[in-house]
Amino acid sequence: MDDRWLSFTLDNNYQLIDLLNGLSASQYLSEGKKLIDEGILNLLPEEKAYPEIIHKAMHYSLLAGGKRLRPVLVIAASEAVGGDRKAVLPFAVAAELIHTYTLIHDDLPALDNDDLRRGKPTNHKVFGEAVAILAGDALLTQAFILMTRSAGMETIPPECILNATHEMATALGSTGMIGGQVVDLESEGKPIDAETLEYIHIYKTGFLIRACIRCGGILSQATPRQLNSLSRFGAHIGLAFQIIDDILDITGDEKQLGKDIGSDRTKDKATYPALYGLEKSRRKAEELVEESLACLEEFDNRADPLREIARFFVQRTF
Amino acid sequence: MDDRWLSFTLDNNYQLIDLLNGLSASQYLSEGKKLIDEGILNLLPEEKAYPEIIHKAMHYSLLAGGKRLRPVLVIAASEAVGGDRKAVLPFAVAAELIHTYTLIHDDLPALDNDDLRRGKPTNHKVFGEAVAILAGDALLTQAFILMTRSAGMETIPPECILNATHEMATALGSTGMIGGQVVDLESEGKPIDAETLEYIHIYKTGFLIRACIRCGGILSQATPRQLNSLSRFGAHIGLAFQIIDDILDITGDEKQLGKDIGSDRTKDKATYPALYGLEKSRRKAEELVEESLACLEEFDNRADPLREIARFFVQRTF
Repeated sequence: MDDRWLSFTLDNNYQLIDLLNGLSASQYLSEGKKLIDEGILNLLPEEKAYPEIIHKAMHYSLLAGGKRLRPVLVIAASEAVGGDRKAVLPFAVAAELIHTYTLIHDDLPALDNDDLRRGKPTNHKVFGEAVAILAGDALLTQAFILMTRSAGMETIPPECILNATHEMATALGSTGMIGGQVVDLESEGKPIDAETLEYIHIYKTGFLIRACIRCGGILSQATPRQLNSLSRFGAHIGLAFQIIDDILDITGDEKQLGKDIGSDRTKDKATYPALYGLEKSRRKAEELVEESLACLEEFDNRADPLREIARFFVQRTF
Repeated sequence: MDDRWLSFTLDNNYQLIDLLNGLSASQYLSEGKKLIDEGILNLLPEEKAYPEIIHKAMHYSLLAGGKRLRPVLVIAASEAVGGDRKAVLPFAVAAELIHTYTLIHDDLPALDNDDLRRGKPTNHKVFGEAVAILAGDALLTQAFILMTRSAGMETIPPECILNATHEMATALGSTGMIGGQVVDLESEGKPIDAETLEYIHIYKTGFLIRACIRCGGILSQATPRQLNSLSRFGAHIGLAFQIIDDILDITGDEKQLGKDIGSDRTKDKATYPALYGLEKSRRKAEELVEESLACLEEFDNRADPLREIARFFVQRTF
């Protein structure tokens, strides 16, 4: 197993010693992680930019931890088809901004009303609801500023950047991710069927993950056949990721997860374990990962990072 | 005076008989208005699309009236440099979605806490806060879906579409429109100086208006010199528009405006009339419009629509 690609998950709060067998991250991967973290700092207005409170709020949630899985998926998918990680960096950073925007808005009192996220008070708890709403808006907007900026992406044809931005926007819209959020909200406290549960998981979580992978491919000029394989890979791991997330809400370590355990049940949230039980859910996630790996059969070893990430998805414990 | 360009403001709630001297809108302009209204209906998921509540909420605020000034500015600026209104239509519609997203989020209890908008209950009053937050998010996202779609914009080079989308995103971000919203929020109930007031007005209102005009120019391949003139024109009318808005909050007719009169004062909002008085504020707005017209001196009669809109800005009574 190539462990380099697991090391990106090593950040302030996380340790993957068991998976890394005590090895330190390779130079190659530590550069990858550094690229993303530097990108987040370099591509946003700084924390002290006027008006300060909104930039403080944006940085607060963005730098509150997080596994950076989505930006790494953009980079890994790009590299799987021979792309350049530096060229897709603005897009990768945008993926993390988008993820953070969804967390801030999801945590609001009117939605999930969560006080804790990644072990810290949620954005609205620190900055108030008004600033939290605007910080989410600003992160989404900043993502589009980055996706459409030409600086740093000169090697990518403008039509590819445009297509990738369109792809991302579509995944996030009312018939994509926001659709999933709405159905999730409407389903709280109600009996839920398997079809609705799958809709919520695929739309609320899967669409962004698949879009990250597809965008990496589109930006690096994947062939239609490659893009199709990446899409299927992304759809499988997107759903697997949410199922594992559901499982960890029951079995995970509160301190490691940085959020309240059992919060799904408290809120009567629709989850896989609630519908199918823990064991069957775990098996389903493992099957999805196996199927995702099969989608990458035609790719050479440049897709190893993607493969390792997929395996990591089912093995993670936080 | 060419009155055709005033007729687009004729919608369900508004009458401009005094300006139109009783004339009906010309075929040319009624087609322009029809284009925008049809675009709004054709370029969004329909009201009954799943999940229905979010689409109902999006359509509710979008079709609740509104003068459609921003989309018409995109079209008028495009035509001023010889562009094709059909080609910029998705962008024009996007401008209205963006404007509507800002209204929905601004009206939320955590922000302005407004119950009435365009004479109807605000979005969160009808659909609840959670859906209203997500409807705003979805409208902003849908705007980027439209700005980056290639269908219908085939005549525009991809790099122009990309630049225009970047321009729009930048105008809306934390150092643009959202910055203005934040400073506005922070200034409520406090003494305010002229510099801060101008910052709020330029950033909160002016940036989007100027971006609409610049985007029209960029999409239709304005020369750098033309674009510079359009920018200065946009900056002037953007500020003029907000000053007039402030004045109408004091002097306007509640029924025509569709919102509570005096709400700025009730909320201790920073306004031009509060700082300078009504008469001086009105004179300032008129001066700005005169200056905006001077910016268009080098343009031929294809810029007449833009000129007429600028004049309309200071003459409007709602």
